[in-house]
Amino acid sequence: MNETELIHQIIADLGEQTQGETVMVGPGDDAAVVQWNTTDNIVVTTDTFVVDRHFSEDTPGDLVGYRCIAATLSDVVAMSARPCYVTVALTVETNSQDWVFEFVKGVRTCCAETNTRIIGGNMACGNKSATVSAIGLVPDSTYVRRDTVCNGDDIWLTGTLGATKLAISANVDWQPKPLEELLQKRDNCFMAAYFLPRVRIEFVEKIRSYVTAMTDISDGLQTELEHMIRSSNLGARIDVEQVNMWDRRHKAHTLGCDDSYELLFTLPKAKRTKLEQNASETNTECRCIGEITSTRGVKFFDNGQEIFPVSGYSHF
Amino acid sequence: MNETELIHQIIADLGEQTQGETVMVGPGDDAAVVQWNTTDNIVVTTDTFVVDRHFSEDTPGDLVGYRCIAATLSDVVAMSARPCYVTVALTVETNSQDWVFEFVKGVRTCCAETNTRIIGGNMACGNKSATVSAIGLVPDSTYVRRDTVCNGDDIWLTGTLGATKLAISANVDWQPKPLEELLQKRDNCFMAAYFLPRVRIEFVEKIRSYVTAMTDISDGLQTELEHMIRSSNLGARIDVEQVNMWDRRHKAHTLGCDDSYELLFTLPKAKRTKLEQNASETNTECRCIGEITSTRGVKFFDNGQEIFPVSGYSHF
Repeated sequence: MNETELIHQIIADLGEQTQGETVMVGPGDDAAVVQWNTTDNIVVTTDTFVVDRHFSEDTPGDLVGYRCIAATLSDVVAMSARPCYVTVALTVETNSQDWVFEFVKGVRTCCAETNTRIIGGNMACGNKSATVSAIGLVPDSTYVRRDTVCNGDDIWLTGTLGATKLAISANVDWQPKPLEELLQKRDNCFMAAYFLPRVRIEFVEKIRSYVTAMTDISDGLQTELEHMIRSSNLGARIDVEQVNMWDRRHKAHTLGCDDSYELLFTLPKAKRTKLEQNASETNTECRCIGEITSTRGVKFFDNGQEIFPVSGYSHF
Repeated sequence: MNETELIHQIIADLGEQTQGETVMVGPGDDAAVVQWNTTDNIVVTTDTFVVDRHFSEDTPGDLVGYRCIAATLSDVVAMSARPCYVTVALTVETNSQDWVFEFVKGVRTCCAETNTRIIGGNMACGNKSATVSAIGLVPDSTYVRRDTVCNGDDIWLTGTLGATKLAISANVDWQPKPLEELLQKRDNCFMAAYFLPRVRIEFVEKIRSYVTAMTDISDGLQTELEHMIRSSNLGARIDVEQVNMWDRRHKAHTLGCDDSYELLFTLPKAKRTKLEQNASETNTECRCIGEITSTRGVKFFDNGQEIFPVSGYSHF
């Protein structure tokens, strides 16, 4: 079983324990949504980051801390909610206290930037790993699922893809910079873009009333598009020239394996002007990269020629 | 720095990011409490369980799954809240799929017993470890902190301590029994009691209006009592004869190192009859084991003789 099949089987095994009157969206989307009162829904997600899998042993703690928080909040934002609270469960070897305090600094910095509170945590001894859980709020029934695309919708993407491959290759002999310095360079340095993903809270609050489906890019553009169309009979056609990339020499890898935590979303063509206005108001770089089609499957075209991404990153 | 000092320093470093108008109880108690609406507070906690630290490699997945959920819900219940939702982040080696499905069965069983929904999760590859986050509900301002003891309060404890040491020693050559069979034996088998802690939801809902402070036993009775009195000028005096134990030959260890997830709480002497009535109504075994005193420190007396616990288990 691959990762997707395993997760589907687990959700099937959990059966009715994943369902309930108050559970609007259970396991399987970017985050869960529960009905709490008549005004708001609560959005909940959890994400784990493991050494040698999601970051290297020598990555400075502040960069790991920032990225773990931003990546987890990204799942809340991808449901169009505003993140409010996080808990952080950290596992480290007992001789890593300096690294722990650096990690805490990264967590604090990302939470301060996003106006999110750290309300709990856990420390355990073992291989370096962090699990962040996040809770957000969205006005009742205004959350956006990822599997509700409509035929003919435009497909949009924020930011620039491809920092993952460049950052992982460069990390070997990279001389880490202070977090404060990297925060200023997210638009023009792929290392900064990789470690410090943007959490686009104001943007999603503006667009949530008219986007039809949304997700974040944590497993590669191709895999995320497949998740978006899976429960429909629809497909997606992507114009690769429209996808912003850090380095166009790695197109196939960038389309398949990126985890930049950028937002991927769909909307009716009639909303294009509104979207461009909201993107401009919030200084959000975003591009229309393709269209939802009635032909099943996800297809990538580069100057009219079909190209095939390197298969997506598996976290498991 | 030991575990407690490290956690205090981390909370200090996080500074105002742990605080906010809606944060009633931040990091440092069993669980956090946030104000959500005028009717309810939300209680949130997270807990990590690591192979070779919290369970052995050969422990059946269903027992690990059940225990992880019960132990985490115990933190929610220790604030006197009703657990509603959990997320489960599981890290395993890719060749452990059979174990994963056993683990899922244990999770499902504990959630079904406690009427808790699994709303999200994460799978990652690495050394076996699980992080469970839980969300509960408590009527506005009726949550119970652990550091609000009063001088002269009686100290009460549910259940029986000491299964930890016995279970860990016996686990080496234990022939695991099916989960269904062990669930029937929690009152008379220490292995069942260890792996399947009780989540005392109905009991805390009855007592929360009059108990003064409450916590669960996750780091040993002595350490939990120290947490309870830390922010006061008070102390605790325990009559060891009153503490129910699986095996009284291991008194010093049982008082210091147990993680049975039993509830430890205090109440005014005038509420004793009410407590006994509520315990009886919910079939909850509990005993008065001592008293909060004006003399600082935690002291244990066994038939009038002071005894000293083996120092508490450190999870870090």
